[in-house]
Amino acid sequence: MWLSGEFPRDLKILRDKKPLVHHFMNFVAMNDAANVTLAIGASPIMAHAKEEVEELASKANVLYINIGTLDEYWVESMIIAGKAASRNNVPILLDPVGAGATRYRTEVVKRILNEAEVSVVKGNGGEMLALAGVAGGVKGVDSIANATMDVAVKIAEEYNVTAVVTGPWDYVSDGKRRIIVKNGTPLLQYVTGSGCMVGSVIASFMAINRDFVKASVEGLVAFEIAAEKAEAKSKAPGTFKQYLIDELFNLTGDDYVRMAKVEVIQ
Amino acid sequence: MWLSGEFPRDLKILRDKKPLVHHFMNFVAMNDAANVTLAIGASPIMAHAKEEVEELASKANVLYINIGTLDEYWVESMIIAGKAASRNNVPILLDPVGAGATRYRTEVVKRILNEAEVSVVKGNGGEMLALAGVAGGVKGVDSIANATMDVAVKIAEEYNVTAVVTGPWDYVSDGKRRIIVKNGTPLLQYVTGSGCMVGSVIASFMAINRDFVKASVEGLVAFEIAAEKAEAKSKAPGTFKQYLIDELFNLTGDDYVRMAKVEVIQ
Amino acid sequence: MWLSGEFPRDLKILRDKKPLVHHFMNFVAMNDAANVTLAIGASPIMAHAKEEVEELASKANVLYINIGTLDEYWVESMIIAGKAASRNNVPILLDPVGAGATRYRTEVVKRILNEAEVSVVKGNGGEMLALAGVAGGVKGVDSIANATMDVAVKIAEEYNVTAVVTGPWDYVSDGKRRIIVKNGTPLLQYVTGSGCMVGSVIASFMAINRDFVKASVEGLVAFEIAAEKAEAKSKAPGTFKQYLIDELFNLTGDDYVRMAKVEVIQ
Repeated sequence: MWLSGEFPRDLKILRDKKPLVHHFMNFVAMNDAANVTLAIGASPIMAHAKEEVEELASKANVLYINIGTLDEYWVESMIIAGKAASRNNVPILLDPVGAGATRYRTEVVKRILNEAEVSVVKGNGGEMLALAGVAGGVKGVDSIANATMDVAVKIAEEYNVTAVVTGPWDYVSDGKRRIIVKNGTPLLQYVTGSGCMVGSVIASFMAINRDFVKASVEGLVAFEIAAEKAEAKSKAPGTFKQYLIDELFNLTGDDYVRMAKVEVIQ
Repeated sequence: MWLSGEFPRDLKILRDKKPLVHHFMNFVAMNDAANVTLAIGASPIMAHAKEEVEELASKANVLYINIGTLDEYWVESMIIAGKAASRNNVPILLDPVGAGATRYRTEVVKRILNEAEVSVVKGNGGEMLALAGVAGGVKGVDSIANATMDVAVKIAEEYNVTAVVTGPWDYVSDGKRRIIVKNGTPLLQYVTGSGCMVGSVIASFMAINRDFVKASVEGLVAFEIAAEKAEAKSKAPGTFKQYLIDELFNLTGDDYVRMAKVEVIQ
Repeated sequence: MWLSGEFPRDLKILRDKKPLVHHFMNFVAMNDAANVTLAIGASPIMAHAKEEVEELASKANVLYINIGTLDEYWVESMIIAGKAASRNNVPILLDPVGAGATRYRTEVVKRILNEAEVSVVKGNGGEMLALAGVAGGVKGVDSIANATMDVAVKIAEEYNVTAVVTGPWDYVSDGKRRIIVKNGTPLLQYVTGSGCMVGSVIASFMAINRDFVKASVEGLVAFEIAAEKAEAKSKAPGTFKQYLIDELFNLTGDDYVRMAKVEVIQ
């Protein structure tokens, strides 16, 4: 399996280094995102004050901008942090939550992409379609599942990023390489912020592996394998979420070797 | 039992349609409210930016305004969203958290009732007493339990809404019909935001059943039956809350038929 | 054991009186802090609007200011509330989250200490070092563990407060008395906001016991004994946190007598 050698090594380094991940996280998922970041082995810090985000984003190992419950103040702070991270070579993960659902969100996402050096953009099908400028709203994504990798490639090329399109399968591309991750469970749809949480795990691996296609796949697989193990303990979303955090905490390199379903498209 | 025919049908429609419930939810309960909304079968979106709430509230199926951690910015956005929802016939549920606890909260609640077309107002005894203009603070509600239905009727008539007064028993009235819901468990008092969560479930049913007295009873019973089933698994609030979400997810129409305790007052 | 007589009595009074604890709590820990406050037996209210914090802080039993996700608006409200609490003899607990991590946080903490009558300051080693004006960042605390009590004493004397420095062991001093609490589990490091939660428990006891060294020790031990009991049920952080809330809810005076590890330094 792809990364069977690198994943166990990177997970170990992650837990040894405990990299600092500065989050702009929405209010809904803030607690879960912090706990997931701790469980995989990194150190989360949530901060949005204009007076301090330049200082924090400059010394963080990764900056994760999730626009889920944005407003004008937060957007201005995201831009300040994004520019500071860019100047200091701190990699940035952008989660364009709700892009396409309102004009404001689509505009904010494009502004961030324009003003900061984003390394990875991760969204669901509807959000990434909106970003790619393809017609279609947040719904109706399933019918075009076959075209999803094309969306990833288009975004990767247009914005010079690694693009991650999440869903039942996840599609990762930097414009050249094309990877499909087939782990996960439909139960994740019933846990709010599961997309935000997988972002925290990807961001954590971005601190360790500067090949961001690999870091994205490592984060996706880590989170989704933990979800599969949690689902074996509970098939209802309340207790499932707690087991998911437990399983991230207990995840081993060997879990990846046994359970990862990663397809590298030639 | 009242609604034994309608509840199973409405629950099925809810899960098929997955209606969009735009929440203004307080920071304390935001994660739980989103998870409860997903568990019952609807789609939550939390958003408060002035730049987008008009657009979102106009296309949502229900708008749920909960003032729990209000401030000036949020109140202005709630008003914008409330007006947009009213213009577009999107029903509004208002949760006047802490009305009576501070003058500011009481004023904000009255302003929202004045400027938007609210369909359902749901609060605990103290909050609803404050709204009804009856003397008495947030405490001391129990001693006047017998008068609670009168408070519901008075609010229903004064503001032309369906009024829901929650507590050990819940009182629902549109000024004409009077219903008491006797499900639930005292353990809910030890889970922060349990009142906010039941609001999310009522709002979800408001998207399906436009008789808002019925939708309120459906939401109350669904949440409180799930709580009773959860209490059978745990009698302590940490694990109880997780089982509560599990049981909402697993709730069936048959649970209503077997467990609902609804009294229609003639 | 120290307080073996007082703790059971204070816990009983706490649960009978259900004191109101006004929280300025960060977004990450707001839900957990509210649930922990309910579980130990007090009543939390989270509010930050400038229009109401003076009114609320004046009638609360304790004000708990946690600066975790501060910004300018929140800081101004904290100051308003802190002054109102001070005028009304409402004791204040201050949690200087991230002091030392950014200049802004260090300045805000000193401003609050200057403008309000703070009774207890509780932080981890790095935060308290920053406050004490001792060189050193947020990391590297372990190497100076032996000097931690000196930091507590220095802060207690400089700011005329009870100082609580948390960590594997916790150090409490009002400048004269020196107490070490040795309960707890390393698993708490993997639960975000565990330091914020212990603050809620200390604040709850501050409403009952006006000897704030004793209230701090009672809160620390209550929380950490609950953590030890929770760890016996789960050694992974997702489910552990739920059991922790359960165990706070089920905590008895006898648990203190059996399990407390408190050292009073002569």
